[in-house]
Amino acid sequence: MDYITDPRAIEDKSMAIIDELLGPLPISPEERKVVKRVVHTTGDPEFAKIVRWSPGAVDIGIKALAEGASVYTDVNMVRVGVNQRLLTSKGASAVCSISDPRVVEEAKKTGNTRAMTAFELLADEMNGAVIAIGNAPTALFHLLSLIEGGRCRPALVVGTPVGFVGAAESKEALVQADIPYITVVGNKGGSTVAASIVNAMLLQMP
Amino acid sequence: MDYITDPRAIEDKSMAIIDELLGPLPISPEERKVVKRVVHTTGDPEFAKIVRWSPGAVDIGIKALAEGASVYTDVNMVRVGVNQRLLTSKGASAVCSISDPRVVEEAKKTGNTRAMTAFELLADEMNGAVIAIGNAPTALFHLLSLIEGGRCRPALVVGTPVGFVGAAESKEALVQADIPYITVVGNKGGSTVAASIVNAMLLQMP
Repeated sequence: MDYITDPRAIEDKSMAIIDELLGPLPISPEERKVVKRVVHTTGDPEFAKIVRWSPGAVDIGIKALAEGASVYTDVNMVRVGVNQRLLTSKGASAVCSISDPRVVEEAKKTGNTRAMTAFELLADEMNGAVIAIGNAPTALFHLLSLIEGGRCRPALVVGTPVGFVGAAESKEALVQADIPYITVVGNKGGSTVAASIVNAMLLQMP
Repeated sequence: MDYITDPRAIEDKSMAIIDELLGPLPISPEERKVVKRVVHTTGDPEFAKIVRWSPGAVDIGIKALAEGASVYTDVNMVRVGVNQRLLTSKGASAVCSISDPRVVEEAKKTGNTRAMTAFELLADEMNGAVIAIGNAPTALFHLLSLIEGGRCRPALVVGTPVGFVGAAESKEALVQADIPYITVVGNKGGSTVAASIVNAMLLQMP
C-alpha cells in the first residue's frame, strides 16, 4: 500500500484537486477558501453549489475571530472539530453547553431539544460571538428568535443543520434573518460542514 | 416560526421520510437501520447507494458492542459523536489518542499523520474492538497494515475516510482486506458518517 503520509502534502494536493474541480468562481479569494474547505471536508463537490452567505459575511467572520470572538456550537462534534490551537492563539475558545446538567434538566422539564435549551441559557454571553450550528434545526430556529427578540447579537451565524425535518426550513429562516450568516441550503449539512467553515475563517486570520 | 421541538418526534418523522425515500431494499432489518441512520445524519440519500459491508458485518458489530467492545476512533469528532450513554451501559468507552502527547511527539519525529501514529501506539489494545475511522485515509491504510501484520485483530472496522487524496483508495483496500467491515465507497464519508454507523449498531444492542 503506497500512500502519502505527510499531512501538509495531503492537504495541498486535495486543495489543488478541488481548485480544478471548481474552476473560476465570481467570489473573493477569502470566500473561495471557505467553499474549498467545505468540499475538502465532505468529499462532495455539490456543496460548492449550495453554500450561501450574506454580503461580507466571510470577512466579518475572519475579523471577529481575529479579534478574539469565541465560537458557540450546538453539539460537541462541532466544538471539537473547530481548530482549538488557532482559537486559543486569540484567547478565545469553543463552547458547547449541550451536556451541561442545567441544560439536561431544563430540556427534560420542557420537552424541548437540549441544543435549543443550551442556546437559551447562553444567550447573554453570545454578543459578538461566532455561532456554529451543524446539527439541530431547533437550535438554529431558537437562536433566530433570540436574535429577533434582542436577547443577543452575534457577529456571525454559521448555520448548517442537516436532515429532512426542519433543516432546510431553518436555513431559509437564517437567510431571511437580519444577521450576517453562512449556510448551505437544502437537506445537506452537518457538524463537519459547520466546523470546516469556521476553520476556513480561522486559517485566514491575519 | 413553527417547528417540531420534541427530539423523539423529530427522529421518528425523519426515519419515516427516509423509509419512503429508500423503498424496499434486499437487506436485513438490522442493516437497513444502519443505512437509514447514515442518510439521517447526512441528509443525503445518495449514501444509501454507496454503503457497503462484508457479509454479517452489522450483526458482528452489534454483538461485539453488546458484549462491551470499546470503540477506537481516528479523530475526536468521531469519538464525541458516538453515543456515550449506550457505550457506558456496557462498560465500554470511546477512545481517541490523536492528542496524546506521545502521539504528537512521535508524529513530529516521523512526519507521519497523527491519526496513523495513534493507531500504531494503540495496536496492542484493539483486539476485539470496533474501530471507527471517519477522517484520515492514512489511519485506515495503517490500521490495515497492522491487521495484515498480525499486530491486532479488531472485531469490526467502520472505515469512512473522506476526500480526494487516498480516501477512496483506502476504502477499496478495506473492502479487499480480511476483516469484517462497513464502509462507504468513493470520495464521500466523514466523521458524522462513521459515528452514525456505530450509533445505529449501539441502538440495536439487545
